[in-house]
Amino acid sequence: MELPGFKHRIPLPRILTFGFFILIILGGLLLSLPMATRNGHATSFIDALFTATSAICITGLTTVNTAAHWSVFGQSIIMLLVEIGGLGFMSFTVLPFILFRRHVDLTTRLLVKESLNFENLSDVSSVMKYVIGLSALIQSIGAGLLFIDFYPRYGLGRGLFISVFQSIMAFCNAGFDLFGNSLESYQNDPYLLLVISALIIAGGLGFLVWRDLLLLRKRKRLSLHTKLALSTSAILLVGGTLIFSLTENNLAVLTPNVSPFNRLINTFFLAVTPRTAGLTTLPYHQLSIAGIVLTIVLMFIGGTSGSTAGGIKTTTFGLLTLQSWAVLRGHHDVEFSKRRFSDQNILRALMLVFASIALVVTAIMILTATEATPARYGLEYVTFEVVSAFSTTGMSLGLTPHLSVIGKLIIMLLMFLGRVGIYTVMFTALNTNRTKKGYRYPTENILIG
Amino acid sequence: MELPGFKHRIPLPRILTFGFFILIILGGLLLSLPMATRNGHATSFIDALFTATSAICITGLTTVNTAAHWSVFGQSIIMLLVEIGGLGFMSFTVLPFILFRRHVDLTTRLLVKESLNFENLSDVSSVMKYVIGLSALIQSIGAGLLFIDFYPRYGLGRGLFISVFQSIMAFCNAGFDLFGNSLESYQNDPYLLLVISALIIAGGLGFLVWRDLLLLRKRKRLSLHTKLALSTSAILLVGGTLIFSLTENNLAVLTPNVSPFNRLINTFFLAVTPRTAGLTTLPYHQLSIAGIVLTIVLMFIGGTSGSTAGGIKTTTFGLLTLQSWAVLRGHHDVEFSKRRFSDQNILRALMLVFASIALVVTAIMILTATEATPARYGLEYVTFEVVSAFSTTGMSLGLTPHLSVIGKLIIMLLMFLGRVGIYTVMFTALNTNRTKKGYRYPTENILIG
Ligand SMILES: [K+]
Ligand SMILES: [K+]
Repeated sequence: MELPGFKHRIPLPRILTFGFFILIILGGLLLSLPMATRNGHATSFIDALFTATSAICITGLTTVNTAAHWSVFGQSIIMLLVEIGGLGFMSFTVLPFILFRRHVDLTTRLLVKESLNFENLSDVSSVMKYVIGLSALIQSIGAGLLFIDFYPRYGLGRGLFISVFQSIMAFCNAGFDLFGNSLESYQNDPYLLLVISALIIAGGLGFLVWRDLLLLRKRKRLSLHTKLALSTSAILLVGGTLIFSLTENNLAVLTPNVSPFNRLINTFFLAVTPRTAGLTTLPYHQLSIAGIVLTIVLMFIGGTSGSTAGGIKTTTFGLLTLQSWAVLRGHHDVEFSKRRFSDQNILRALMLVFASIALVVTAIMILTATEATPARYGLEYVTFEVVSAFSTTGMSLGLTPHLSVIGKLIIMLLMFLGRVGIYTVMFTALNTNRTKKGYRYPTENILIG
Repeated sequence: MELPGFKHRIPLPRILTFGFFILIILGGLLLSLPMATRNGHATSFIDALFTATSAICITGLTTVNTAAHWSVFGQSIIMLLVEIGGLGFMSFTVLPFILFRRHVDLTTRLLVKESLNFENLSDVSSVMKYVIGLSALIQSIGAGLLFIDFYPRYGLGRGLFISVFQSIMAFCNAGFDLFGNSLESYQNDPYLLLVISALIIAGGLGFLVWRDLLLLRKRKRLSLHTKLALSTSAILLVGGTLIFSLTENNLAVLTPNVSPFNRLINTFFLAVTPRTAGLTTLPYHQLSIAGIVLTIVLMFIGGTSGSTAGGIKTTTFGLLTLQSWAVLRGHHDVEFSKRRFSDQNILRALMLVFASIALVVTAIMILTATEATPARYGLEYVTFEVVSAFSTTGMSLGLTPHLSVIGKLIIMLLMFLGRVGIYTVMFTALNTNRTKKGYRYPTENILIG
C-alpha cells in the first residue's frame, strides 16, 4: 500500500514540504514589512503569513483586500509568490520522476517519459525550461490580450501592471485581483471574461496535456492521461454551464443592463472559475443553494494533475466515474479509449478521495464550532470556505476576512495540504521513526457495508 | 473488481432487490386502506408507499405523523414491516453466504462460519432460528422494561402496545414513534432513555457480534470483526458524547427543570441516536451547526454490518481509519489486534465509501434544486435529510413532511439503496445485458492527485 514516488532514499516529500514552508515564511516576512502596505503600517504577521500561504499555494483567499491593503511592492511580492508556486507545483509533479527515476515505479515513469517525449529524462533543466518557457509564452500572450482592454481604462503603467498581474493570476489559477471586488465590474465585458477563461483553462490542463497536444500532429495519438483529462474537463465545463443556467435561471439576478449574451458568458464563467481559479464576476451569496452546492462539487474535483489547478483532479474523478460504472455493470476491467486502468491507479485514486473527504469533513466539524455563521447562511458558509481552501480555489462566501486565529491557521493548513499533497505533508510529519518489522500478521476478514 | 457474492448462477441481488420491492408495494397498498388511518380517509398512495418504504428500510422518516395519522391497524402494519425489515436485513447479511456458499469467496465464508460457529453452515433454518430467537428475546426484555415505565402512564392495553412498538423500533433502529414528537416528552426520564439506548446499541451491533460475545467464555477470543466493531462503536459513543457536551454546552438549550444528570443522559442520547436509530429527545433545529454536522457524520458512519443499523458501518469506518494511519506512517500492512486486513477488504471499503458519497452528493445537488430551503436553514437542511435517508436513520430537520413528489421519490430511493445496498440494487438494474469479452485492453497509467 506504498505510494509511488515514496521509495527513494532522499526524502523528496520532505524537500517539497520544507521548501514551500520556507517560502511561505519568507513571503510572510516580506509582506509584514511596512513598505508592503498602502498606508505604510505593518501588517499583523498572521495576516501576512496567511496572504503568503494563499499566494504560494495559488489559492486567492484573503483576510485583507488585495487592492486596498497592499502597496505595489506588496502586490508584486504576491505576484512573485504566485508565479513561483504555480510553476513550482507544475514542475514538481514530474520532477520526482526525473530526479529519482530509478526509485519510481515503471509505469508512472513511462507515462511521464512518453508524455514529455524527452529522449533523456535525466535532463532536468530541459523539462524546467520547457515548463517555464511555455508558461511564460502563454502568460505573455494573456497579458497582451488583457492590455488591449486595460490600457484604455488604466493607462500605460498601471494598465501594464494590472495586465501582467491578472494574466499570471488567471494562468496560475490564483484568485487574487487588483480591483477590490474581483471581476464584478466586468460582468458586461465578455472579451475580458473569455480571455481570463482561456488562461484559466490553459493553466488548469497542465503541461503534460499541452505537450501531448503540441505533439499530436507528429505522433498521431494522445495519451490516456490527456484523453481522460480533456474529456472530463469538457464535460464539467459544458455540463456545469448547462446546470448553472438552470439553477441560476440564466443569471436573472444580474442587473437588467446585462445582455442575454453576457448572461450566458457569466454563466459559463460560473462553470470555469470553480475549477480552482477563484476569480468571480458576482458575489456568491446571490447564487441559489443548488448553485453553491454545484460550485463546491466543482471546486472539489478541480483541474488536471500536473497543472496549476487544485482539487482531487479531473483524471481522478474521471477514473473513479468510469470505475463505478464498470463495477455496477459487473465488468472486471475499467476501460477508456481502448485502454485499461491499472489496479494501482484505481486504489491510489480511491485513497486520495477518501483522505481528502476525511480532511474536509474534519475541518468543517472544527470550523463550525470555532467560527460564527451569519443568520442568512447555514452549513454551506463553512463548507464553501473549507473546500475552497483545500482545493486552492480561493472563492469565498465571506468567512475568511472574519476568521478567528484558529480558523486562519486551519484554512492555511488546508491550503498547504491541498497544494503540497496530504500524503506528502503527513508523510513528512509522521515518518520520523519508521521501523521495519521482520514479520507480517496473518490476515483476517471483516464484513464491509 | 467483482464483488464477493456476485458470482453464483442464481441472481441473489435480484431476489433481494425484488423481494423488498414487493414488500414495499404490499405495505403501501395495506397502508393506503381507509382502515389504516385514524380518521378513516384513505391516505394518498405516495404517502402510504413512502411510509412502507421507510418502515421496511427501518428508517423512520415520515411525511405524515405516525401517532396522529395512522390507526392501530396502520401502526401495526408499520410495526410488522419494521420487524420484517429488521430481521430480514440482519439475516440477509449472512444468508447469501449460507445459501450459495460454494460461490462465495473463501475468506468471507470462513469469517461467517467462524463467527456463527455452526458446524453445518447449510442449515439455513438454524441460522434463522438463532437470529429470530435472540432478537425476540432482546425485544421482549426491552418491551418488559419499557412497560414498567409506560403502564402507569397509559394503562395495560395501550401501555403494552406502545411498549412492544417502541421496543421493536429501538431494537430495529427504526425512528417511528407513537408520541407525535418522538421522545421529546421524556427528556426527564433517564430510565426510559437508557433502556431505549441499550436496545438501540444492541440492535446496532448485530448478531455476529452477539454470538461472538456469547461464545467468548468458551472460545477465549473474539473475531477481528467483533473487536473492530466494538472498539469503533465505543469510541464513537464516548467521543460523540464528549463533543456534543462541548458543542451543545451540556444542552443548555433544554428547559431549566432538566437536571444536570438528565442533561448528560440527553447528551449521551445525542450520540446514540444518529447511529441510525432515529428517535430524538429534542427538535434538532435547537442544535448548533457544529452539532448538526457531527450528527450528519455519525449517521453516515452508522452501526455494524449484520445488524439493524445502516450507514457505511463501523467496520468500514474503523478499517479505513486504520488504513489511512498506516499509509501516512508509511507502513505496508494495515493491522489491528495482531491481524492484517486483506487488500480485498480495503478496496471494497473504499469503493463503498466512494459510491455512498457520490450518491449522497448527487441527491443533495438534485434536492437543493427541487426543494425550498427555509430562511433559517442553509445547506444542512437538505444534507441532513439526504444522509438520514441513505443511512436509514430517520431523523429530520423538517424537510420530509414538505417534500415535493420528486423529493419523496428521491428520499424513498435513498432509503432503499441505503438499506438493500447500492451495488446490490444497481447491479440488478444494470446487469441485464452482460456480455463477456474474450480479450482485455492493455493498461495505461494516468496521473492521480
Ligand atoms: K485558486
Ligand atoms: K432508523
